[in-house]
Amino acid sequence: MPEFDVLAIGNAIVDILARCDDQFLDDNGIIKGAMNLIDAERAELLYSRMGPAVEASGGSAGNTAAGVAGFGGKAAYFGKVARDQLGEIFQHDIRAQGVYYETRPEGNHPPTARSMIFVTPDGERSMNTYLGACVDLGPEDVEPAVVAGARVTYFEGYLWDPPRAKEAILESARIAHENGREVSMTLSDPFCVDRYRAEFLDLMRSGTVDIVFANKQEALSLYETEDFDLALRKISEDCKLAAVTLSEEGAIIVRGDERVKVDAYVVEELVDTTGAGDLFAAGFLYGYTQGRSLEDCGKLGCLAAHICIQQIGPRPMESLKESAERKGLI
Amino acid sequence: MPEFDVLAIGNAIVDILARCDDQFLDDNGIIKGAMNLIDAERAELLYSRMGPAVEASGGSAGNTAAGVAGFGGKAAYFGKVARDQLGEIFQHDIRAQGVYYETRPEGNHPPTARSMIFVTPDGERSMNTYLGACVDLGPEDVEPAVVAGARVTYFEGYLWDPPRAKEAILESARIAHENGREVSMTLSDPFCVDRYRAEFLDLMRSGTVDIVFANKQEALSLYETEDFDLALRKISEDCKLAAVTLSEEGAIIVRGDERVKVDAYVVEELVDTTGAGDLFAAGFLYGYTQGRSLEDCGKLGCLAAHICIQQIGPRPMESLKESAERKGLI
Repeated sequence: MPEFDVLAIGNAIVDILARCDDQFLDDNGIIKGAMNLIDAERAELLYSRMGPAVEASGGSAGNTAAGVAGFGGKAAYFGKVARDQLGEIFQHDIRAQGVYYETRPEGNHPPTARSMIFVTPDGERSMNTYLGACVDLGPEDVEPAVVAGARVTYFEGYLWDPPRAKEAILESARIAHENGREVSMTLSDPFCVDRYRAEFLDLMRSGTVDIVFANKQEALSLYETEDFDLALRKISEDCKLAAVTLSEEGAIIVRGDERVKVDAYVVEELVDTTGAGDLFAAGFLYGYTQGRSLEDCGKLGCLAAHICIQQIGPRPMESLKESAERKGLI
Repeated sequence: MPEFDVLAIGNAIVDILARCDDQFLDDNGIIKGAMNLIDAERAELLYSRMGPAVEASGGSAGNTAAGVAGFGGKAAYFGKVARDQLGEIFQHDIRAQGVYYETRPEGNHPPTARSMIFVTPDGERSMNTYLGACVDLGPEDVEPAVVAGARVTYFEGYLWDPPRAKEAILESARIAHENGREVSMTLSDPFCVDRYRAEFLDLMRSGTVDIVFANKQEALSLYETEDFDLALRKISEDCKLAAVTLSEEGAIIVRGDERVKVDAYVVEELVDTTGAGDLFAAGFLYGYTQGRSLEDCGKLGCLAAHICIQQIGPRPMESLKESAERKGLI
């Protein structure tokens, strides 16, 4: 059986990143800071209005898998691309990072998913995702031996958007638990939580998911409250372990009655927040699967997010392992 | 007739950029700092060995056209992509920068050109270019009204690599001169100079080319000498105007007996030299077509190069116009 620290499952996406001002978001009806789902027609329209861009492999769970591997962990990934140039780019980048990735690409229609990400001067990213080939991910893409061999199977809440990915998740979670492994998810986005609140709560309360990642807005959205303490108390009741990120205030980790607060690293220049949450999860899960304390897991998560937001694109170009070594974290 | 400041003609390429160490270049027989031409098979091999990468539109003259537009100049471009995803990316980025670009894409074989660019810790870039669809650029792609309306028609020496692009250049130069316009070229690369020395000298001495851009190594290669003063004297005899870049020492501009030395701007962090020469040409030609002094042209060139080398990729993400305004150059 292959052995992995983390198996990540998600929408396999290539990011197309460009800067814009806030007026552009308003003019084009883009919800700032959110993941806006778009169809092929709107993708074409927005691209025609987008400034000069750069491309980088992305996808929330893909970024997390790449991050785990960047720390030196063993990572695997399930996600669907098409047989096209963007699909080749996605495949290349995740494998080149050392991640096991063998999901069979579909034909070339629909094409590989892309997300047009507009980065405003405050560093906030607003995503516009055309799911393309991601709609074809299904239970037939689950590689049982990989799931069985992964300490943690991690998936993104975004997978509730395509039609059949949830079947792949439920099947993976079943295999993971049968093999004494843990299952983790990220709530992904406040609007995603709004779309699937009941299902996400059911995943947690049924024990399908053990470990939950969220940011503050997602945690508040999950419980439809403005009371963050209440949200933390509820999330600690609904799952075994939760890590809630707080942007420049770091993160808080809750396990039963336990609360661990971790500070963020001071940012010199906030360039682009794309991937920050994904990289927090990468650092946390790397530490977690190495048996580190919750505080250390949180610090590793904050470090990875810290590095990620000081560059364009969601996958750190500098070595996470070397950065963590310099900070004395590993 | 459309009016343009600069028409640029070149190989239309998408860059695939990744970091590597010097050992990687040695192990893979890549000549450091050069443009290494590769075929499809070697492209596949090198890509399989390349680390995680990011993509950005490139192509030497394409970068120059984008840079002229970035200063607020009117730019046009001729170059050939295929009807594929990388071709769409190239088209989008150059048009989104405000460059007129209507060259008809060819089918989808060969695919759009890409250059795998390895950036070493010293910031030097080593390019590995698969020409793909660029081999189809020919005289049928010349838009006579665009050439006639452009103050300067600028092309890259690299165009002597594909089989028929030189016919497009000679036709464009003829139209340009018939309309009282000027023609400019960059020598592109010392090895490119070595491949086409006699032809490049003939372009200059026949008056087909009026203005030449080169870096020091290219100028030395052109005259097969180690004596830079000699090379400068010869180049001043062989063309009307030449601008020779000297990396961290800035640039020297020669016109007849006139010599104008311009200092480079001090670099805080050298990230990636990809596009530095292209952006120098952009700043210079923007100034030149606005009727500025040679010194100002040189300063604009140095500023554009300075901005370019402090980021990943060849097309500045910050506004060249605003940067030049802050420096009091425009």
